[in-house]
Amino acid sequence: MRPDQRHTLNRDGDTVVILDQTRLPHERVWRRLTTLAEVEQAINCMQVRGAPLIGVTAAYGVALGLAESADDDRLEYVLERLGATRPTAVNLAWALGLMAAALRPLPAQERSAAAWRNAEALADADAACNRAIGEHGLAALSAMARPGRPLRVMTHCNAGWLATLGWGTALAPVYAAHAAGLPVSVWVSETRPRNQGLLTAWELDQCGVPHTLIADNAAGHLMALGEVDVVIVGADRIAANGDTANKVGTYLKALAAQACGVPFWVAAPCSTIDANCADGKAVVIEARDGDELRHVSGRLEDGNTGRVAIVPSGTAIFNPAFDLTPADLIGAIICERGVLAPADLARIVTLQRGPGA
Amino acid sequence: MRPDQRHTLNRDGDTVVILDQTRLPHERVWRRLTTLAEVEQAINCMQVRGAPLIGVTAAYGVALGLAESADDDRLEYVLERLGATRPTAVNLAWALGLMAAALRPLPAQERSAAAWRNAEALADADAACNRAIGEHGLAALSAMARPGRPLRVMTHCNAGWLATLGWGTALAPVYAAHAAGLPVSVWVSETRPRNQGLLTAWELDQCGVPHTLIADNAAGHLMALGEVDVVIVGADRIAANGDTANKVGTYLKALAAQACGVPFWVAAPCSTIDANCADGKAVVIEARDGDELRHVSGRLEDGNTGRVAIVPSGTAIFNPAFDLTPADLIGAIICERGVLAPADLARIVTLQRGPGA
Repeated sequence: MRPDQRHTLNRDGDTVVILDQTRLPHERVWRRLTTLAEVEQAINCMQVRGAPLIGVTAAYGVALGLAESADDDRLEYVLERLGATRPTAVNLAWALGLMAAALRPLPAQERSAAAWRNAEALADADAACNRAIGEHGLAALSAMARPGRPLRVMTHCNAGWLATLGWGTALAPVYAAHAAGLPVSVWVSETRPRNQGLLTAWELDQCGVPHTLIADNAAGHLMALGEVDVVIVGADRIAANGDTANKVGTYLKALAAQACGVPFWVAAPCSTIDANCADGKAVVIEARDGDELRHVSGRLEDGNTGRVAIVPSGTAIFNPAFDLTPADLIGAIICERGVLAPADLARIVTLQRGPGA
Repeated sequence: MRPDQRHTLNRDGDTVVILDQTRLPHERVWRRLTTLAEVEQAINCMQVRGAPLIGVTAAYGVALGLAESADDDRLEYVLERLGATRPTAVNLAWALGLMAAALRPLPAQERSAAAWRNAEALADADAACNRAIGEHGLAALSAMARPGRPLRVMTHCNAGWLATLGWGTALAPVYAAHAAGLPVSVWVSETRPRNQGLLTAWELDQCGVPHTLIADNAAGHLMALGEVDVVIVGADRIAANGDTANKVGTYLKALAAQACGVPFWVAAPCSTIDANCADGKAVVIEARDGDELRHVSGRLEDGNTGRVAIVPSGTAIFNPAFDLTPADLIGAIICERGVLAPADLARIVTLQRGPGA
């Protein structure tokens, strides 16, 4: 894989081509998005996923949506539709806010072309953030390296190159370490119910990074055994006090890390910090369809892809997609500006709000 | 379901009939065991599972094994084979120890008939333990009942009637509450990788107890939201200091319970207490085949049962079956003798060791 290439989303003329993540790791299927409705669907059913990639995809969705109509009120309609696709990842609202600020002052007929340019700029900026997170994270990892054995990083869900326009957030330091010759191996949690850990295992495999899959339930046992040097996760929304919403199950890993004396780091671009959320209680946690637990997709014994129902249809299911990790369980937040303590967020939040806030 | 019936294992003449738990919840298949080898296989591949049921099944396995040969050294061979089927649940070694003590003094030709009698007695004793655990647990649950809403119990894995010869360990208080008219609802964790939570949902459904399935990852979020009144789990081995080995993922739930101020109880017969383990570090944690994560069984879209491979064959997997919950995270151990604090275990352990120890 070339480090300067995009691996999840590309513009192709007046369309956007995405890697359909609902088909991985069994099939590598590219999907062409040509309309606003197709972008909404791709975000909502998680063909694209990962907070940074969701934000950038929505920005391209604005461009596609504006190309469908030059009505004056089209922009507001498009922003509203895309904003409603998923509630928890703030990068979505952030990207749409930037698009709104750039496009609202323009005449309607100029907005579509400008939207494409702005979406491309957001994609490039995300890749640059990833690089910076990787460099800052590598420095932190290097400081804990021990001769004679690899650094053992545990992650949750997928916050690698599949979740971004570059090399990922939580996995950016891992890839940076691997590229720098610092031996590293990754404990990959399955991440029920959607099994995004299998995406992580797949993308690490593509890059030759050693890794081992575990059930989510095994994370505490491994930390108690002393088999984990550091936990690094991504984030969907970081409140102003450092409380972090991320894939459900993150909180359990953070509790185990604290109990076992394992450093617990969050890696995310500053766009994931939400100055409007004072703390985690203000974050809306998306509840998704119970069908995500009811069915499991994979490869059938005949070699085709398919799915099995594991839960009888009458069983009630509750399926929150995220949880909240309190700031006091987080040792460091690695963003493009450096390695911060949660308490340092106040400075970033003040910068985001601007001098008038 | 009749409360005085056995639902998991029955003697039928010179054979043992078990409910094959690897086929649930999709099919209710009874399997006839006629040889030692079939009992070994049934325990090892988890057609029977749950610490108390494993112990009793092994006792019946002694009877079947002795029926195959009247050689003098047959008993020791049978005990050794059955003892090697699974390492973590101490009830297995405990049941085999009782069988050994009862049968070794007898002439070889009398051992088989005596083995059947002793196995039946162990089965009856397990059901009686379940009843006592249910009564003690009901008293504890009643004390925390609030008018106007059901008590919300979270459990992990399956420690209900499928895991025992009676009404279960962790679920015995739930069934007792339901029978006594104390409204109760159960949060059921999927329990990857083998999805024993689906067994729990199925058996609760058979008995009309309200329940909701969640991903294992969601347990901490629910406790943080205040949606859980108490966590009750079973145990595979309780060390003399109260450290408890149970299905992997139990430790994460115990950490979340402590962080959120939710009582965390272990329910198990005294036979689960291992006086020979001073603390959890002495407990052998079984690592099982990674195939348990690689494949998922269920109902195919054509209505037949089958499985899908969700993890590519090249991916390394680590699959510990249990973890250890330190005694200081456990608020109460409910056994047939009553509701104990972990610190009270010393008294039980002394009783088990006997006056000469």
